[in-house]
Amino acid sequence: MKEIKVALIQHKYQGDRKINLEYINKKIKEACKSGAKLVVLPELHMSEYFCQSEDVKYFDLADYYEDDIKYFSNLAKECEIVLVTSLFEKAMEGVYFNTAIVFEKDGNIAGKYRKMHIPDDPGFYEKFYFTPGNLGFEPINTSIGKLGILICWDQWFPEAARMMALKGAQILIYPTAIGWFDEDSSEEKELQLNSWIDIQKSHAIANSVFVLSCNRVGFEKDPSGVLEGTRFWGNSFICDPRGKIQAKTNTDEEILLSRLDTSKIQDTRRIWPFFRDRRVDFYKDLNKVCDE
Amino acid sequence: MKEIKVALIQHKYQGDRKINLEYINKKIKEACKSGAKLVVLPELHMSEYFCQSEDVKYFDLADYYEDDIKYFSNLAKECEIVLVTSLFEKAMEGVYFNTAIVFEKDGNIAGKYRKMHIPDDPGFYEKFYFTPGNLGFEPINTSIGKLGILICWDQWFPEAARMMALKGAQILIYPTAIGWFDEDSSEEKELQLNSWIDIQKSHAIANSVFVLSCNRVGFEKDPSGVLEGTRFWGNSFICDPRGKIQAKTNTDEEILLSRLDTSKIQDTRRIWPFFRDRRVDFYKDLNKVCDE
Repeated sequence: MKEIKVALIQHKYQGDRKINLEYINKKIKEACKSGAKLVVLPELHMSEYFCQSEDVKYFDLADYYEDDIKYFSNLAKECEIVLVTSLFEKAMEGVYFNTAIVFEKDGNIAGKYRKMHIPDDPGFYEKFYFTPGNLGFEPINTSIGKLGILICWDQWFPEAARMMALKGAQILIYPTAIGWFDEDSSEEKELQLNSWIDIQKSHAIANSVFVLSCNRVGFEKDPSGVLEGTRFWGNSFICDPRGKIQAKTNTDEEILLSRLDTSKIQDTRRIWPFFRDRRVDFYKDLNKVCDE
Repeated sequence: MKEIKVALIQHKYQGDRKINLEYINKKIKEACKSGAKLVVLPELHMSEYFCQSEDVKYFDLADYYEDDIKYFSNLAKECEIVLVTSLFEKAMEGVYFNTAIVFEKDGNIAGKYRKMHIPDDPGFYEKFYFTPGNLGFEPINTSIGKLGILICWDQWFPEAARMMALKGAQILIYPTAIGWFDEDSSEEKELQLNSWIDIQKSHAIANSVFVLSCNRVGFEKDPSGVLEGTRFWGNSFICDPRGKIQAKTNTDEEILLSRLDTSKIQDTRRIWPFFRDRRVDFYKDLNKVCDE
């Protein structure tokens, strides 16, 4: 049995870049003191969730990309952890990605993932800011296992989870920024939250892998005034390869700690042998956008 | 708004072919009296779940295939319903399928689906009896809509649901025969049931379609004596395109009735536009069994 202690740092944006970074630093060190060997941060944790409106000024936030990489590289090395960050990457003038950088415990970059599925709906105008990822679904090899990093909107696509699992990912990790509009009914909010949990649990079940989902919390006002703003709903969770949630937060800031028993992956696949029975001879139309 | 009243007939095998058929006839007529326009039966409803052991004598059950088709054709016509049956099909000597036949309300065959993913694990030795389906994932056009028929083990494969939805299925229908072993702990049983519900709900969510899952109930002894037998867990349910369960049974015999508001499919896809954002340019490895 190989156990990995993991920590998801569910937090608000602290309202100021410097204060926010100090906060994250402190929380990562707390997670390490608790024995975490893998630490995950929420989506775009270095700033407000700027995709609530379309404003060119926010592209400036990507100028911190190289600085942030240096910072978290040092921090991963200092804490001797595998660290999953979510940054705004400027690749060239006019090409920006929503990118997760994974650091090895020696501070080296283990790999990066550029968000493949980009949302665009009221309050989440990501297609304005991000070019859809061009690196595909490639798990990242680390000292604690093969990580399938996916980001937020990716969670609604069973294809993404399956691709990662087929390529050997043992743990699917979703840095996320999803929330409610206050004006929605409590029934609507519950439905949205449940769907979000259920779809991610299903990736654990279909693929016999762990799923770690790390969301932000807190209310962020829409700076354009078009909408009120978004209340990020937290509810970060850790799900085992049989679809059992083994740890979960609520809507407060929290470090979610849990141990992953990676022998469960093999144990599950032996008695729930879904991978044995896939009908790859009949799946080719999955590569179509629609039927016509 | 187009509403369809549907009925899932969750039942035991009644222990005798003739009595069983009379029972099904009665239940279908009850469902019709309640106004159901679509009626669904559980997997292999014409006999015991014979796949608990491997015995050549059970191939004889497929000799009833043509008789059963005539019988249910007449019944669908008499009741003016779209009827989903699950039969043991003999296609030629040595080639048998686990086949769903869908009847139109005029008694004609609307289409058939041959189970694509075939399980094989203790108590469910289906690979001995059934050739994996050779017709692919093709929805069946009926007077009440386009039905994506899938059968039991298919439910664990997001690919199957996605293929059906991409080809226009509005309602995914799973005739099923799944149950517990009495010797398992209550925790293990709950985990199995929850996984089974969650994976099917996820197909509704990922594809914005209705999911109807019709399971059998009752305890059936393992005739080989190797295992005790299987207690089919019922829990048939109807889930809407946002992943909300709108009707569910428990472990007793029951006709589960509900109305499907098919306008929910379009409404959901407009605000949860997952189909818009699929990365078909990067899905080709879904056609591989494994990475090597």
